[in-house]
Amino acid sequence: MTGIKYVYLFKEGKAEMRDLLGGKGANLAEMTNIGLHVPQGFTITTEACREYYRTGEKLPDGLWEEIQPAIAEVEKQSGKKFGDSTAPLLVSVRSGAKISMPGMMDTILNLGLNDETVQGLAKATGNERFAYDCYRRFVQMFGDVVLGVEGYKFEQMIHQAKEDQAREKGGSVYFDSDLSAASLKKLVSQFKKLIEAETGKAFPDDPRQQLQEAIIAVFRSWNTNRAIFYRRTNHIPDHIGTAVNVQSMVFGNMGEDSGTGVAFTRNPSTGEKKLYGEYLMNAQGEDVVAGIRTPLPISSLAGEHPELYGQFEEIAVNLEKHYRDMQDIEFTIEKGELYILQTRNGKCTAAASIKIAVDLVSEGLITKEEAVRKIDPHQLDKLLHRRIDEGAKLKIIAKGLPASPGAASGKIVFEADIAEKLGNAGEKVILVRTETTPDDIHGVLAAQGILTSRGGMTSHAAVVARHMGKPAVCGCEALRIDYNSRKITIENQEYTENDVISIDGGTGHVIQGLVPMRDPELSGEFQTILKWADELRTMQVMANADNPVDAAKAREYGAEGIGLCRTEHMFMDPVRIPIVQRMILAQTVEEREEELAHLQPMQEEDFYGILKAMHGLPVTIRLLDPPLHEFLPNSEDLITEIAELRLSDQEDREARQKLYDKESLLKKVRALHEMNPMLGHRGCRLGITYPEIYAMQCRAIFQAAARLVKEGYIIYPQIKIPLVIHYKELEILRQMINKIATEICLEQGVLIAYKVGTMIEMPRAALTADKIAQFADFFSFGTNDLTQTVFGFSRDDAEGKFLPHYMSSGILENNPFAVLDRDGVGKIMRICAELAKSTNPELKIGICGEHGGDPSSIDFCQEINLNYVSCSPFRVPIARLSAAQAALKG
Amino acid sequence: MTGIKYVYLFKEGKAEMRDLLGGKGANLAEMTNIGLHVPQGFTITTEACREYYRTGEKLPDGLWEEIQPAIAEVEKQSGKKFGDSTAPLLVSVRSGAKISMPGMMDTILNLGLNDETVQGLAKATGNERFAYDCYRRFVQMFGDVVLGVEGYKFEQMIHQAKEDQAREKGGSVYFDSDLSAASLKKLVSQFKKLIEAETGKAFPDDPRQQLQEAIIAVFRSWNTNRAIFYRRTNHIPDHIGTAVNVQSMVFGNMGEDSGTGVAFTRNPSTGEKKLYGEYLMNAQGEDVVAGIRTPLPISSLAGEHPELYGQFEEIAVNLEKHYRDMQDIEFTIEKGELYILQTRNGKCTAAASIKIAVDLVSEGLITKEEAVRKIDPHQLDKLLHRRIDEGAKLKIIAKGLPASPGAASGKIVFEADIAEKLGNAGEKVILVRTETTPDDIHGVLAAQGILTSRGGMTSHAAVVARHMGKPAVCGCEALRIDYNSRKITIENQEYTENDVISIDGGTGHVIQGLVPMRDPELSGEFQTILKWADELRTMQVMANADNPVDAAKAREYGAEGIGLCRTEHMFMDPVRIPIVQRMILAQTVEEREEELAHLQPMQEEDFYGILKAMHGLPVTIRLLDPPLHEFLPNSEDLITEIAELRLSDQEDREARQKLYDKESLLKKVRALHEMNPMLGHRGCRLGITYPEIYAMQCRAIFQAAARLVKEGYIIYPQIKIPLVIHYKELEILRQMINKIATEICLEQGVLIAYKVGTMIEMPRAALTADKIAQFADFFSFGTNDLTQTVFGFSRDDAEGKFLPHYMSSGILENNPFAVLDRDGVGKIMRICAELAKSTNPELKIGICGEHGGDPSSIDFCQEINLNYVSCSPFRVPIARLSAAQAALKG
Repeated sequence: MTGIKYVYLFKEGKAEMRDLLGGKGANLAEMTNIGLHVPQGFTITTEACREYYRTGEKLPDGLWEEIQPAIAEVEKQSGKKFGDSTAPLLVSVRSGAKISMPGMMDTILNLGLNDETVQGLAKATGNERFAYDCYRRFVQMFGDVVLGVEGYKFEQMIHQAKEDQAREKGGSVYFDSDLSAASLKKLVSQFKKLIEAETGKAFPDDPRQQLQEAIIAVFRSWNTNRAIFYRRTNHIPDHIGTAVNVQSMVFGNMGEDSGTGVAFTRNPSTGEKKLYGEYLMNAQGEDVVAGIRTPLPISSLAGEHPELYGQFEEIAVNLEKHYRDMQDIEFTIEKGELYILQTRNGKCTAAASIKIAVDLVSEGLITKEEAVRKIDPHQLDKLLHRRIDEGAKLKIIAKGLPASPGAASGKIVFEADIAEKLGNAGEKVILVRTETTPDDIHGVLAAQGILTSRGGMTSHAAVVARHMGKPAVCGCEALRIDYNSRKITIENQEYTENDVISIDGGTGHVIQGLVPMRDPELSGEFQTILKWADELRTMQVMANADNPVDAAKAREYGAEGIGLCRTEHMFMDPVRIPIVQRMILAQTVEEREEELAHLQPMQEEDFYGILKAMHGLPVTIRLLDPPLHEFLPNSEDLITEIAELRLSDQEDREARQKLYDKESLLKKVRALHEMNPMLGHRGCRLGITYPEIYAMQCRAIFQAAARLVKEGYIIYPQIKIPLVIHYKELEILRQMINKIATEICLEQGVLIAYKVGTMIEMPRAALTADKIAQFADFFSFGTNDLTQTVFGFSRDDAEGKFLPHYMSSGILENNPFAVLDRDGVGKIMRICAELAKSTNPELKIGICGEHGGDPSSIDFCQEINLNYVSCSPFRVPIARLSAAQAALKG
Repeated sequence: MTGIKYVYLFKEGKAEMRDLLGGKGANLAEMTNIGLHVPQGFTITTEACREYYRTGEKLPDGLWEEIQPAIAEVEKQSGKKFGDSTAPLLVSVRSGAKISMPGMMDTILNLGLNDETVQGLAKATGNERFAYDCYRRFVQMFGDVVLGVEGYKFEQMIHQAKEDQAREKGGSVYFDSDLSAASLKKLVSQFKKLIEAETGKAFPDDPRQQLQEAIIAVFRSWNTNRAIFYRRTNHIPDHIGTAVNVQSMVFGNMGEDSGTGVAFTRNPSTGEKKLYGEYLMNAQGEDVVAGIRTPLPISSLAGEHPELYGQFEEIAVNLEKHYRDMQDIEFTIEKGELYILQTRNGKCTAAASIKIAVDLVSEGLITKEEAVRKIDPHQLDKLLHRRIDEGAKLKIIAKGLPASPGAASGKIVFEADIAEKLGNAGEKVILVRTETTPDDIHGVLAAQGILTSRGGMTSHAAVVARHMGKPAVCGCEALRIDYNSRKITIENQEYTENDVISIDGGTGHVIQGLVPMRDPELSGEFQTILKWADELRTMQVMANADNPVDAAKAREYGAEGIGLCRTEHMFMDPVRIPIVQRMILAQTVEEREEELAHLQPMQEEDFYGILKAMHGLPVTIRLLDPPLHEFLPNSEDLITEIAELRLSDQEDREARQKLYDKESLLKKVRALHEMNPMLGHRGCRLGITYPEIYAMQCRAIFQAAARLVKEGYIIYPQIKIPLVIHYKELEILRQMINKIATEICLEQGVLIAYKVGTMIEMPRAALTADKIAQFADFFSFGTNDLTQTVFGFSRDDAEGKFLPHYMSSGILENNPFAVLDRDGVGKIMRICAELAKSTNPELKIGICGEHGGDPSSIDFCQEINLNYVSCSPFRVPIARLSAAQAALKG
């Protein structure tokens, strides 16, 4: 014995012991302690799992000895005995990490059966068929999960057994439950032979040996590829390990007065306050979850077993009160007696979780702060996705269960690997399967949506899709899938791989071809949550928008201004690009100014539009940022043209002239060519070397502003200088801006309240922030470029080349362009913010890179006391919620 | 009166008051106080100059009032009176900043003369011609310097006066001194008319008005373009201002018992301990400096005026004892009486300054520490430049004075502007002028060497060239320069602009065409200084070398190891590049390993050679760094070829095959193409994604090391991983290296003492140094790349595009790739070093970028407690000295 306690009886634990007992173990303890009718058992701690891995995959010293008295206690409670041939104790062995990883790890049921105890079970229940069914299930599961024999080999034998029985005894033998005791008995023996042939060892008959091997199998299942993948996707640390729960079995398959089911206390799709779930009589739990038999809705239980239903309803209400959240409950009825096997906070759609949170507040169960904290901001993204336009004419080709809301279109693919490959290449695909398994997760992640032909609302596909916010239609039985020929048949109509279909996870419709989609609106509850979030957060939320349409969308979603209005897209307009090119190729400042004079009124209209759309709120306009060669044709095309022209008829005068022109243009393109444009002549380096370009933009801004002020609008233009690395750049450009502003204000006789600030996107700007801050009204972290320079990662190159390898090999946990890298980029941001506030305490500091809409990054922004975040309009609600959650942490 | 004292009599000051009185003023005070015979006067402080600029170019309040009693005191000391018609006091008015800026600012002599006082001067000296000569010089100088009338207009009038006098009076009138009193008197009146015509105002006759205007002129001369340019080149701050020294005149032009001269206490070219200088009898100081009349060597004075020479020798010895340095002394003899006008620490060649420092130590005047501190490491660079090969056959076409040592070849150019333009474009040019002026500095800076036809060893060209370490031949009188036709004639042979010549500043030879040059060796004194430096410094000095030849050179120059051995050049070898290309284009790991197997024995020989050359010292080998596409043909060439092949005969099978091959190659080149290769798939990112490449390099290193150990060599291989951004990269690669090393050591039965470290060249590496340090034996700052990423400057692009503008406009003081940017790059280095030592106090930290050989950067490395610097072999001596100086500062 090591002195460490590795084993806890359920009655010894409590809810607060999640770290040690895992979520499931802590819950079983909690349920036991609040008096629910829970089959008793014990939990082996996560510490034991960690020790198992620490010592090179060996059961910890003393663990096995500690398990013995726990078994004795369970024997005492249940009145059954482990390995006893009269009243045998059977147990389930289940994994249970601190954070739930549904379906990811292994479970063994009915452990404790052997040729002797099965007789005891048959005798005790008076049901030989049931006993052998248990035995068959147990040997099959143990063989598959613990001993690693491939599952399909058992299934083939079952299939054969059904045929044999039908041939020998007659009658329809379609379901497993149609198999007779004799058939099952024979199957058990066949299974054992199979296992011995495959593993070279006899099936263990000793229940204690079974238990020991099952515990090891659960520990091992922590590190399967699918579990590791799931943890990576869900940001669960690898080192925490799983607990193991050993619990005495109760049986839902003891006849028609037995059953098993799963139910949510509220509807996990809509949030409606009504029991929502499914059950099957005369079945064990996995029959419901695996989607092999289509179960009945829980409401049917009210009609068939009103008393049990009443009990269950009461338990549901009490559990919600106790856990102050919607519950996901597993139950079993053994000969008319209701057992609760598990309860946990229910996973549900974003819409449902919002409605539930708001309802729980109005029911007085939780506070507004708790409601805001409850919502996973990552999930909101899905609510803000599109749905099928109501007015669209749809060719509906089938209907299944509306398993996960939202709509999607894409090419049909049948395999998760292909879905992943195409999805990563940017293709939109719909993953179509008879049913999905945990091995398909990477494909689900990469697909736009999921369509299955089997399984219910709680099938694997449905649960995973809802969790990931992917639209899903499940149990679409009209679908015939032929994996070999890669075809679907629906009522004689064939659809092959790569044909485009659409699905509507809200209605269950499967639709032929692409369909028109509409942007989402925010529900009343969503607005309520966001209103609460606004009350709680301390950071401002702004949006990135370059035009009046996006600005209006940002306003609608609650943005408090525009944090980043890029001006380069305005230069790319097809009408303007020839002028822009002439401006770039100008030989003299005068020539350049002439072309700029043509651009100025156009830019003025751009700024007029967006400032007007945001009246009353600030609009932060970033002056021209990209290198000038981005506006010119590319040199490779020119070289090809020139090579061809050279070989053409040189007597032709026109061709000669054309060749000359192309060669001249190529010379200029080459002169502007840069080895590393990301680190080149761009941003304020243009403003410093070609001040006339920035001057034009500023005149356009202040002319537009002056017009609006005269028209009575209240506007707050803010000018943002990109790519600053030295305070003198900002000093010089600020002087220029002030001069232009003063001139125009005096000329137009108006006052314009404007600000001047800078992007912080190069490490040197961050490192010299104390000096730069003295010339700035605001700082705006451009974390895209800052990430590029801090890592030395060119995003264009890294994401296609080595970055995937860096993530899959575990060097980087996340793509740093999606989730802010706190150790590196975050550290320099913190240094910057501290330096800047030391010389300019009034400075407003924010972030406008893509990270501005990422919850974990927003959390970090709050941690380093930033004043605002700015993100794309569609992410504004997420940012509002995330900012509130970050503020609540502080 | 403001209460601030702006005016100090010489006897009120002292040497320590340089900041306030300027170098010259403090020196005059010091000389006065140590009893030298110095013409008396007073100094107006630098504070007055700063106040002048602070108040918008107005003389400070109270200054003028304060000057009056000072004048009275000088009158009392000299027995003369300002503006007096009997015994008039004449004064010089000179600038004098804290740091000497020779020839950069304005000087007025003989101030106080007018039509009345000139009579007094004539009477007092009994020499009317002298008095009018003074008067003529004064009006000319005042007109030019104070009133801004162009100098050549006065010169034209003098020329005319000579012709007039010759015509009217006969005799040869060649020199200014041949002009008669009457001619001079007439000239004065013509000058005054010219001035009135040009400026619209009469020449000021009131000596006090003259003085006031002269003081203002000196203040103003602080901000002429040439002064600003000089300060920028010499890193002198703009804000410190100049003092003004007002000093009573003594006259070297009072006849043949008067004279003036300049002398160094030791030879400024060689350091030899012997008076070295020039003088002219019956002349004023500027005649010597300007190089208009060729003066006599100071040794002649011993023959002609032995008593004066003796006096001067004694003064020289005393001044050296007092100032503990070689002195540069200006003197005047007035009617046989020796006055010291100025003394300062003498500027000299690097070789001379080293010899002088070593001699001063052996003479007991200074300590070793002071000697080491005295040497300007920037200057050493020149000693380490090349000289003409002794064995070369030279076509010597002329001989001048050996004014500044070293040899150079280049195209003849005649104008500083052209020299600058060509020099900046990378052309080697020799600037050829009759004489140079301060306006030519930018040309001197850009030229390889200077050749003048007039002027002596202390002429402007000679002084400036020595200071800049440029070879110079001066006073080459055989040279006839025709600026108009841009030709030189030497003994009837013509050389036109752009003809190539060579000069040898050590012999004074001018040579036709290019000449073979040799690398320098270090003198005994140089070795002595470096030995002292080695005793004093605390940082190690290593060298960057990629092959045994460079390694040997580094050893010879005192490197204590190789701090950076790049391996990419080894891949570029023409024999190897086809293998390297096949390796890169390999489709499978097996194919790649096959090609690497061919490369391995070659790499092994590379490492064998360099490790052997450095036996007993560490060799730090950096694994492959550049992106793989650098080893492939470029896409533009391929596109041209393909376009041509496409238009060729498609019936030709061979052509079709060739087209196919080229297209395939282009596809691969494109696949490897990167938008920003600087931030791309290179450095250890290659080692992580293609571990077989680094594995091959490591095997080659350890195989070579094992052979050497067996052969009895003592070797210290160190493996350096480039471009690390995350500790896991280093962790993974270090494991791989350890595995290979162990295998080879066991196989070969040897022990190899090796280390593994990393480059710190990306901001993220610096910011997470605490983690990375746990896996490293050493850190090596790659400040080239670190500068690129901290600034976001692609060096390839910045230096050709915006960086020159950033420097000329004053945004950046220096090119950050030449001089380490302390505010940005330096700050992150400091953060890195602190983080790293916090987790690994044993870590060795150094620098191996180009900055490793730059004195100011080395100084910073000491400041942040680095352990070593590594630089190119030729800069090792500079680094040794700089490291010692940095250590002495600490």
